[in-house]
Amino acid sequence: VAESIRRLEIRGAPAIGVAAAYALVLAVQDHASPDAGTPERRFREAVSHLATTRPTAVNLFTALKRMQTCFEAIRTTDPLRIHESLLGEARAIERDDREACAAIARYGAPLLKGVSAVLTHCHTGSLATAGGGTALNIIIEAATRGRLKRVYVDETRPLLQGARLTTWELMQHGIDAVLITDSSAGFVMQQRNTEAVLVGADRIAANGDTANKIGTYGLAVLAEKHGIPFYVAAPVSTIDPELASGGEIPIELRAPEEITHLRGVQIAPSGVSVYAPAFDVTPHGLITAIVTDKGVLYPPFDEAIRTVSKAGAANVERTV
Amino acid sequence: VAESIRRLEIRGAPAIGVAAAYALVLAVQDHASPDAGTPERRFREAVSHLATTRPTAVNLFTALKRMQTCFEAIRTTDPLRIHESLLGEARAIERDDREACAAIARYGAPLLKGVSAVLTHCHTGSLATAGGGTALNIIIEAATRGRLKRVYVDETRPLLQGARLTTWELMQHGIDAVLITDSSAGFVMQQRNTEAVLVGADRIAANGDTANKIGTYGLAVLAEKHGIPFYVAAPVSTIDPELASGGEIPIELRAPEEITHLRGVQIAPSGVSVYAPAFDVTPHGLITAIVTDKGVLYPPFDEAIRTVSKAGAANVERTV
Repeated sequence: VAESIRRLEIRGAPAIGVAAAYALVLAVQDHASPDAGTPERRFREAVSHLATTRPTAVNLFTALKRMQTCFEAIRTTDPLRIHESLLGEARAIERDDREACAAIARYGAPLLKGVSAVLTHCHTGSLATAGGGTALNIIIEAATRGRLKRVYVDETRPLLQGARLTTWELMQHGIDAVLITDSSAGFVMQQRNTEAVLVGADRIAANGDTANKIGTYGLAVLAEKHGIPFYVAAPVSTIDPELASGGEIPIELRAPEEITHLRGVQIAPSGVSVYAPAFDVTPHGLITAIVTDKGVLYPPFDEAIRTVSKAGAANVERTV
Repeated sequence: VAESIRRLEIRGAPAIGVAAAYALVLAVQDHASPDAGTPERRFREAVSHLATTRPTAVNLFTALKRMQTCFEAIRTTDPLRIHESLLGEARAIERDDREACAAIARYGAPLLKGVSAVLTHCHTGSLATAGGGTALNIIIEAATRGRLKRVYVDETRPLLQGARLTTWELMQHGIDAVLITDSSAGFVMQQRNTEAVLVGADRIAANGDTANKIGTYGLAVLAEKHGIPFYVAAPVSTIDPELASGGEIPIELRAPEEITHLRGVQIAPSGVSVYAPAFDVTPHGLITAIVTDKGVLYPPFDEAIRTVSKAGAANVERTV
């Protein structure tokens, strides 16, 4: 599972969290070999291993923490009870994410009232979460309610999540997905062809600064320039209240080959230098609103996040 | 030649103009078959055909006009004289472009005094012109003078001119080319990793509005946001003083397959809608300076362009 997360076979911040939780269940139940060590050792090794896969999305670490809290409470009991408890917690994490997706769509769709075309980046749908998605779920909900007609989809280089996944999900829902290159977004806004931009998030700092797929920051600047609302959609679990601002969010650098090669075909000269950040940070001042599963947050985000984080923490405790 | 221009085997606004001029020489000399018509008919048909290949870059139309002016002056003379005159004019167009490239580098390099890293988009080097290039020639000249060390190169989807051509040319000159995805440019600027942005131009209106490869507008907005100078480099022949503003510049739409497929590999779902503008227009207010072969133009661009266009027109007449 760790290797699948590292290779982006499992990707999307919420989906990574859910997968990591189930991976810890597999870790303790995998005790066929006597060399595998105690359940506790296997659990702790798996936590360490999973924590190294992707540095930016906080959902991974939130899920690992929830599973650790669960484990500490029952680690002295028998293996069967440990396994059952961890499985229960993983299922709770999955269920929470599924419910969060539904709540995000419910809270977000009214923001698109009267909007006929939006633009989105990367992929934030059902293939990236345990439920219907975050930003994409809002879009699908708004289209279902009959107002939204067209979605401009950034292809999202280098791994083309927009071209491959977002277009596909929208087409499954019968929504007009218009694929564009990432650098066409400015022109689409300049021509007044989109009335809002919606994106997901991999980690949100206490002040609202948001790490998301590389290119998100540029979209936010363009949206500001054109007076177009810029919405971030993510469950409260994506907020990391321990980080004061986005400058503290670690930004993952990916392998050069993700840019110089495409499906094994070389598309740049051998030996060229490559800079491949997987994410960027959008300062809170460029964000119109953050749609969470606990409601829509508006500036000043630090206050809104303080309030919702407390509610969120209470909620997490309740599910454990 | 027309087909090669249409397929972008010959691309880069200046190179298209030069190639079209030589294509007209081929048109009049190709009279082996009696069915081919008179030199005049062949010339006029070739002009019409070439004019349909690419709508945005003005260099094509400027070159066709120069060849037409030349043809009108000698069309009643004998075929050998017609051929010689047209060949002379095509060579003059090529020479003018080569000299323009050198002049642009000379005028532009001082703008990068003290600059150690720049960012560029698409490809504006020797493979796009008859000489050393426009924006890329400035970059190479500045690096040769020993100040400039690093060039961030947008890969430039969909056809990857940056990844394939710009990186290669810079590497030939021993300059550190750092390949990035187009959507990473904002992050590079946010991190203060680039001190200037340089791009070419396909058509410049009388007020300085500039059509260039899709994505240029977004870069200009980002450069403004970060207080980074944004330079356009192009010969005076790229200015179209007949167009009052950029809104009148025709924007070419390319085939969907250029985005949905890469080297024959399908990278998006079958049947997806695609919007594939090849260019966008950067309003003059976002441009710090336009580096031409007649000097550096500064705002107010309408005045500067009026002055330099007259000088340019005089210069064109002199070469004919």
